[in-house]
Amino acid sequence: MDKKYVVGIDIGGQSAKIGIVDARGEVLSQTVIASNKHTDAKEFVDYLAQTVLGLIKQADVEGQVRGIGVGAPDGNYYTGDIEGAMNITWCGSRTVHFAKMLKEATGIPVSLTNDANAAAMGEMTYGIAKGMKNFIMITLGTGVGSGIVVDGKVVYGHDGFAGELGHTCAVRHNGRHCNCGQDGCLEAYASAIGVARTAREWLDMNDEPSLLRQVENITSKDVYDAAKQGDALALRVFEFTGRILGEKFADFIAFSAPEAIVLFGGMARSREFIEEPIVRAMNENVVFLWKNKVKLLFSTLKESDAAILGASALGWEV
Amino acid sequence: MDKKYVVGIDIGGQSAKIGIVDARGEVLSQTVIASNKHTDAKEFVDYLAQTVLGLIKQADVEGQVRGIGVGAPDGNYYTGDIEGAMNITWCGSRTVHFAKMLKEATGIPVSLTNDANAAAMGEMTYGIAKGMKNFIMITLGTGVGSGIVVDGKVVYGHDGFAGELGHTCAVRHNGRHCNCGQDGCLEAYASAIGVARTAREWLDMNDEPSLLRQVENITSKDVYDAAKQGDALALRVFEFTGRILGEKFADFIAFSAPEAIVLFGGMARSREFIEEPIVRAMNENVVFLWKNKVKLLFSTLKESDAAILGASALGWEV
Repeated sequence: MDKKYVVGIDIGGQSAKIGIVDARGEVLSQTVIASNKHTDAKEFVDYLAQTVLGLIKQADVEGQVRGIGVGAPDGNYYTGDIEGAMNITWCGSRTVHFAKMLKEATGIPVSLTNDANAAAMGEMTYGIAKGMKNFIMITLGTGVGSGIVVDGKVVYGHDGFAGELGHTCAVRHNGRHCNCGQDGCLEAYASAIGVARTAREWLDMNDEPSLLRQVENITSKDVYDAAKQGDALALRVFEFTGRILGEKFADFIAFSAPEAIVLFGGMARSREFIEEPIVRAMNENVVFLWKNKVKLLFSTLKESDAAILGASALGWEV
Repeated sequence: MDKKYVVGIDIGGQSAKIGIVDARGEVLSQTVIASNKHTDAKEFVDYLAQTVLGLIKQADVEGQVRGIGVGAPDGNYYTGDIEGAMNITWCGSRTVHFAKMLKEATGIPVSLTNDANAAAMGEMTYGIAKGMKNFIMITLGTGVGSGIVVDGKVVYGHDGFAGELGHTCAVRHNGRHCNCGQDGCLEAYASAIGVARTAREWLDMNDEPSLLRQVENITSKDVYDAAKQGDALALRVFEFTGRILGEKFADFIAFSAPEAIVLFGGMARSREFIEEPIVRAMNENVVFLWKNKVKLLFSTLKESDAAILGASALGWEV
């Protein structure tokens, strides 16, 4: 029987999303399980495998699944391992042979990569980058991830970890401390957490009135809501964040000369506030060859499906 | 008859080096012509073609040359054009259909790329990067060029101009003006011209004694000679230059996760002074995944042959 379906699994710190996908990118069936209830990787993988097999049975596509694609933080495409994913309860600083374990538990071939690379695959296979051979995917979520596509293929590099653009240097001197241990990383400024931090720092600087002064634990969503209501400080936070992103995008362009930079993730929903400053700073800072030539695109994949689609795109490659 | 030779041509602002190369990277025969005596591109190409055909005849390999590979500033691999090479008398801001013209004039297929990409091809085919699938070539000469190899192939990007790492931002605020029109580019600090400029700026800052005070028009070679004699200011210039390079290399590594960064060009000859600060800054600034893992290598290709070898490596691809 022709194997015309794949399974996509997106592993996050809180939950894992699982879906069965056909060649046109239709999600036939999907489900979500908690990913933070286990401390033992084997136990989580067994639980996940049962869920996957149950979903396949329920969708009546047994024997028709070509492969399973997994997107996971710190996932290594070459080894199939998840290495040192600090936000994953059953990983932490350890190395989990995730692809191997899941293949053994399901009997289906498994291909794994990090979540941002999976997002890039998803955009290239089903999304706004369909047909593009050279683009850079930037995921703006709790962190800042990236997937780089050169000549139609995701760049994995020598060790499988290429594309950590969230940890390139945005502020050289006296930069904010980043979770990775370095200072001044792009992620420390342009992630959802970075945006909230900028707002809190600026509120502390002086007495400028702002709607955000009424909020106790400011999140990037609060900054967005305040900006929506015309709050001057909140608007400047996005302006600042967009400028930092645009400055770094100018460097990224000089590396791989992409056709487009594609944004995805929670922060990308602030498009109305960050798009213009990003584009401006990108074109102001990029070398003349690419001034006003590289597109800034926002993912149009249906948000509930995007993570599954991205991961599932790997399932065709097994 | 089997075509077992290629021709390599390295075009510079002053001269063009031409050589006939075999599959093992032996330069059978070579010559140099001036590249700055013509203002008309057609006339220069005709002159070059005559030289190439003469060299082939002289080496007695007529009919045995598979292709001509050309490395040229602002050379575009996709189009075979040289576009806006300001330092080339017969180009300037124009676009010269160089590969097409040279093919017509010689009857031999021509492949062209920029000089740094050619250098990367040379290292991969004949040099210290032989067998490597992922590395970044940095050419430290009058300018700072780069050739990025991912998965065994030079990255050309969407438009053929990928790998302009000399024009990524090294100093964000109040950076030096660069020839490209931007401020703060790596090239403005780490090129031979940048090094001389650092020395001159520092001499103007205070009255610190230095051997360089006796030199009228300081070049990077003068700074090197002074450092050799233990001149404190000259040594600090290399320390500073190395640090700036290392900081940027940390960013480049996060992009493509190379096995090594390979240095080539006049400035790379200052290895004894720049190697240690580069390695230190690179490892201090890179994200933990790659700390002390990426090699810094210096080209070992015979200097007189390297440019020809690099260009010739393209000749096998035509």
